[in-house]
Amino acid sequence: MEPVLSVEELQQITVDAFPDWNVPIVESLSDDTLVLAQPLSERNGRPGGTVSGPTMMAIADSAAWLVILAHIGPVLLAVTTSLHIDFLRKPDIADLVARARLIKLGRRLAVVDVELTSRGSSDLVAKAQVTYSIPPRPSR
Amino acid sequence: MEPVLSVEELQQITVDAFPDWNVPIVESLSDDTLVLAQPLSERNGRPGGTVSGPTMMAIADSAAWLVILAHIGPVLLAVTTSLHIDFLRKPDIADLVARARLIKLGRRLAVVDVELTSRGSSDLVAKAQVTYSIPPRPSR
Amino acid sequence: MEPVLSVEELQQITVDAFPDWNVPIVESLSDDTLVLAQPLSERNGRPGGTVSGPTMMAIADSAAWLVILAHIGPVLLAVTTSLHIDFLRKPDIADLVARARLIKLGRRLAVVDVELTSRGSSDLVAKAQVTYSIPPRPSR
Amino acid sequence: MEPVLSVEELQQITVDAFPDWNVPIVESLSDDTLVLAQPLSERNGRPGGTVSGPTMMAIADSAAWLVILAHIGPVLLAVTTSLHIDFLRKPDIADLVARARLIKLGRRLAVVDVELTSRGSSDLVAKAQVTYSIPPRPSR
Repeated sequence: MEPVLSVEELQQITVDAFPDWNVPIVESLSDDTLVLAQPLSERNGRPGGTVSGPTMMAIADSAAWLVILAHIGPVLLAVTTSLHIDFLRKPDIADLVARARLIKLGRRLAVVDVELTSRGSSDLVAKAQVTYSIPPRPSR
Repeated sequence: MEPVLSVEELQQITVDAFPDWNVPIVESLSDDTLVLAQPLSERNGRPGGTVSGPTMMAIADSAAWLVILAHIGPVLLAVTTSLHIDFLRKPDIADLVARARLIKLGRRLAVVDVELTSRGSSDLVAKAQVTYSIPPRPSR
Repeated sequence: MEPVLSVEELQQITVDAFPDWNVPIVESLSDDTLVLAQPLSERNGRPGGTVSGPTMMAIADSAAWLVILAHIGPVLLAVTTSLHIDFLRKPDIADLVARARLIKLGRRLAVVDVELTSRGSSDLVAKAQVTYSIPPRPSR
Repeated sequence: MEPVLSVEELQQITVDAFPDWNVPIVESLSDDTLVLAQPLSERNGRPGGTVSGPTMMAIADSAAWLVILAHIGPVLLAVTTSLHIDFLRKPDIADLVARARLIKLGRRLAVVDVELTSRGSSDLVAKAQVTYSIPPRPSR
C-alpha cells in the first residue's frame, strides 16, 4: 500500500493534535509501516523508574492513528473503536519506539498491529492490536 | 469477596500514586466492585469536546488496580499484563465514572471488568477487561 | 432496547446455522440480554474433564451473534470483527451457559459483553467482549 | 530462543491432543516461530464457502500452545488465560496457515503473536495475541 501523506505532513498533524504535550516524533514511513518515537519525560514515569502503562497505550494509539492517516489522508473523523495491549517487559528509562503496521484497510474499519520497544533495544516491551472506525471509502 | 482496605485507604494510595495529576476519586467499594471518578480537566479533552481515548484507558487501568488492591492489600508489585477496551460512545464533557468489578482473584492473576460512563448518564462509553499479575498468594 | 425476534425465531436460526453440530439452546431473551446454553458433548471435552477453550470461544461468539440478530432481525451478513476472551476458571463438566448483553448497537458496529458460567454455578468461567460488523442501518 | 522440542515431537503431541479431529500439521519451527497448517474439512465451513470464526480461533490457540511447548517442553499444564483476535478478511476455501511467534516467555506467562493466512496467499485473514499461564520456571 502506497502512503498518501509524507513524514513531514504526518509530523505536522501530530504537532497540531498534541499541542500541550510531549510531542511524539514520526521517524519513518514505508509502505504499511510507520515508526513513531515518544521522548521520555518525567510525566510518563512510574515509581521504580519505568514508563507507565497509560503512556504505552497512548503511544500505541497515536501510532495506529498516524499510519491510518498516512494511507487515507488527514481524515479527522477516524476514531479508535478498540485497543488490545499485552505488556511484556518493563521498559527501560529511554524513549519509547512504536512500529505500527497497517494490517487491514477496509471501507469502514482499519486494523493496526503495533510493536513497542525501548530506544536501543530490540526486545518488545508491549504489543497491541488497534482498530479504528474510518469514514466510508472504497475498499482496497 | 470481602475487601481488606477501606475507601479512605484506597484514596490515600491513589493520591500517593498520582502526585502531579488530576487525582481520581474513590467513590465507593462493596464486595467485588469499586467506583472511581475522574474529574474532567482540559488536559483530558480532544478537539470537538470529548474525552480522549488514553484518558479512558488510564482511568480503566487505575480502577482495575484499585479494586485488586482493595482485596489483596497495598501490594505495589501488581502490574498490568493486558488491557482490552472497546470504545462505545463519545463521552460528554463530564466527569468519567469507572465501575470496576473483580471477576477473578487467583494466585498469580487477577481479572477486572470495567464499565465506563459519563457522570449523570447510564450509557456505557467504554468497556474494558484488564488483567494484572500479582505476587503469589493463596488462591480463593 | 426492544428485541425484534422471539426466542423461538432465534432458536430456529440457531438450528439452521449449526446443522451438524451440538445445537445450542436459546433459553431466554429480555431487552438487551440473551441466554444461550451449550449442552456438553464428549467432543467439547479436554483430557482432565473440562470444557475446551475453543468450545467456550464458539459459544461466546454464537451468543453475541444471536443477541445482535434479536435486535436487528435475521441479517445473515453480520460478521465477527474481533473477539477478546479471558479464561477465568476451569469449567466443570456441565452445560455451559452464556449470558450475552448488547452494549452497543451502532450503525456499523455492535458490541456484546458475554459472561460464561457452568450450569448450576454463578462463578464466571470466562468473560468475553465481541464486536460484529453489521450492514448499515439507522443508529439508535 | 532455542526450541527444546523438534517438529516431529510437536507433531506427535498434536496427534495425541486432537484424537478425533482434523489434525493440524506442524510445518516448521525456527527460533521463536512455529508454522501450523489446518487442512480444511467440511466441518470448518460456513454457508457462503468460508472458514468459520471458531475454526480460526481454535487454530490460533493451538499454534500458540505448540510454540510455547516447543520452548518449555511437553508441559501439559499450560492453559490459555486470554485470547484476542481481529478478523481481517474472509478466508478462501483453502487450508489455513498459522504463524505463531513467541514474544514473551516469562516465569509465569507466555505471550504469542499469531498471524493467520490462507494457503497460497500472503494476505492476513486474522491476527491474534494469545496468553498462556505456564508452570513456574526460570525466567529468560
